[in-house]
Amino acid sequence: MWSFKRQVNYYETDRMGVVHHSNYLRYLEEARYVWMEEMNLPYPEFERQGVIIPCTKAEESFLSFLRYGDDFSVHMEMYKFTGLRMHFRYEVYNEMTGELCLKAETVHYTTTREDYKPTSIKRSHPELFEKILSLVSDTRSK
Amino acid sequence: MWSFKRQVNYYETDRMGVVHHSNYLRYLEEARYVWMEEMNLPYPEFERQGVIIPCTKAEESFLSFLRYGDDFSVHMEMYKFTGLRMHFRYEVYNEMTGELCLKAETVHYTTTREDYKPTSIKRSHPELFEKILSLVSDTRSK
Amino acid sequence: MWSFKRQVNYYETDRMGVVHHSNYLRYLEEARYVWMEEMNLPYPEFERQGVIIPCTKAEESFLSFLRYGDDFSVHMEMYKFTGLRMHFRYEVYNEMTGELCLKAETVHYTTTREDYKPTSIKRSHPELFEKILSLVSDTRSK
Amino acid sequence: MWSFKRQVNYYETDRMGVVHHSNYLRYLEEARYVWMEEMNLPYPEFERQGVIIPCTKAEESFLSFLRYGDDFSVHMEMYKFTGLRMHFRYEVYNEMTGELCLKAETVHYTTTREDYKPTSIKRSHPELFEKILSLVSDTRSK
Repeated sequence: MWSFKRQVNYYETDRMGVVHHSNYLRYLEEARYVWMEEMNLPYPEFERQGVIIPCTKAEESFLSFLRYGDDFSVHMEMYKFTGLRMHFRYEVYNEMTGELCLKAETVHYTTTREDYKPTSIKRSHPELFEKILSLVSDTRSK
Repeated sequence: MWSFKRQVNYYETDRMGVVHHSNYLRYLEEARYVWMEEMNLPYPEFERQGVIIPCTKAEESFLSFLRYGDDFSVHMEMYKFTGLRMHFRYEVYNEMTGELCLKAETVHYTTTREDYKPTSIKRSHPELFEKILSLVSDTRSK
Repeated sequence: MWSFKRQVNYYETDRMGVVHHSNYLRYLEEARYVWMEEMNLPYPEFERQGVIIPCTKAEESFLSFLRYGDDFSVHMEMYKFTGLRMHFRYEVYNEMTGELCLKAETVHYTTTREDYKPTSIKRSHPELFEKILSLVSDTRSK
Repeated sequence: MWSFKRQVNYYETDRMGVVHHSNYLRYLEEARYVWMEEMNLPYPEFERQGVIIPCTKAEESFLSFLRYGDDFSVHMEMYKFTGLRMHFRYEVYNEMTGELCLKAETVHYTTTREDYKPTSIKRSHPELFEKILSLVSDTRSK
């Protein structure tokens, strides 16, 4: 799986001394946007064409803690694209200990800034649509 | 279900013009801690006794958007307590439109600051344990 | 001075066990928007009329810490309005101990969404302009 | 001046479409901790020795906006160390346009976790003290 690395920031911890659980959705988003950029499908390009991709579903299992200063990696893939919804799965590892910290899935749909409701972009933005389709990891789900 | 109300803050929105999806886990935490306080089981009391309650699982369905200035309510209950894990469910409503914005569940376990691994507090902290048990909404799951 | 109260949220603390210093600018913003709403000059009304009010300057002295669960108050006033820039001052108190936690000032300017540069709204939005002017606390600075 | 680069994250923007002004204090902290790490004085080492370095003062001039996807750099130096207080100055640049986005200063003091009040570490932690002293950029202020 494609992966992305960075270090935990101090301001991402809470008084338990560990990364606040709400920040993992931010890590996943950060990884997703870096991935899109590396796949030549940068999110700002979607915005320029009037398309946004809100999150509609998230599932997270918090398995062990990340602490201030830890290096971590987000491993991820888009394993399904229904034409409307993009399905991602993720694993976050502590790079120092090798421990699996988080298993997660998120689902996102395409829409326009005017609408905010799920909208296929197959006809309105065929190039973006085909590009998304080409990035699905599991060829059976295409 | 018990509920909690407040207004969306400007700094909780993102460039999509709506509440960033990572902030809902913060809203749920906020509601949970207000609920615990109202139930005479304030979280700081757990901390004073050396007990913490990390989140181990979260599932969220984002159904409609909250925007800056919207009033919203979090309706919630602890529907199960296994002796080790507390199961919560939530519904977030836009108070202006009545729309359901989020359905979510989170699971938390009790542990000690030294350990960070799931630990029953039945023997070590019988009063906290009994108090949690008494707050379960679904009497069949007790 | 006008004041606003609320409780510190868990997710606003960091591993030092206290409110992360970056969150105070959020508390000030929150107080400012509640103040504007109570003064019948709600910020969403500015937005509807195409006006935004970015922060151009902030000065903060952190005098003592707020911790999770503390009740605090933000005391504030707009002490000057130059026609272009709104000057606010703030004091944040721990409501339990009476301690002064923060002294701060922020400066904001009016502008339009198209421009983002300081722009007087005296002619373009005379009602908003007059309303702001009427809220200046120090009558000598009007 | 030493500098640090990264990209604006989506979740750091607000509904104005730009980086929320409270996030700049987080960027400065992030730069400061990377700088400390590169200077062989990593912040976790302070914590291990029981020393923390709270922020006591911050001044920020917001000069132009950063937007989602922008690359930016934080240029910084510790220009003064009084034995008790560390004085930092910063400039944040948009790496795409060269624009200066922020000028800022922060002041931090050394203390212990037990105390939280300004405490010289000259005698208690002479090595950390000397190391900090050696990193002051302006030799006249040593």
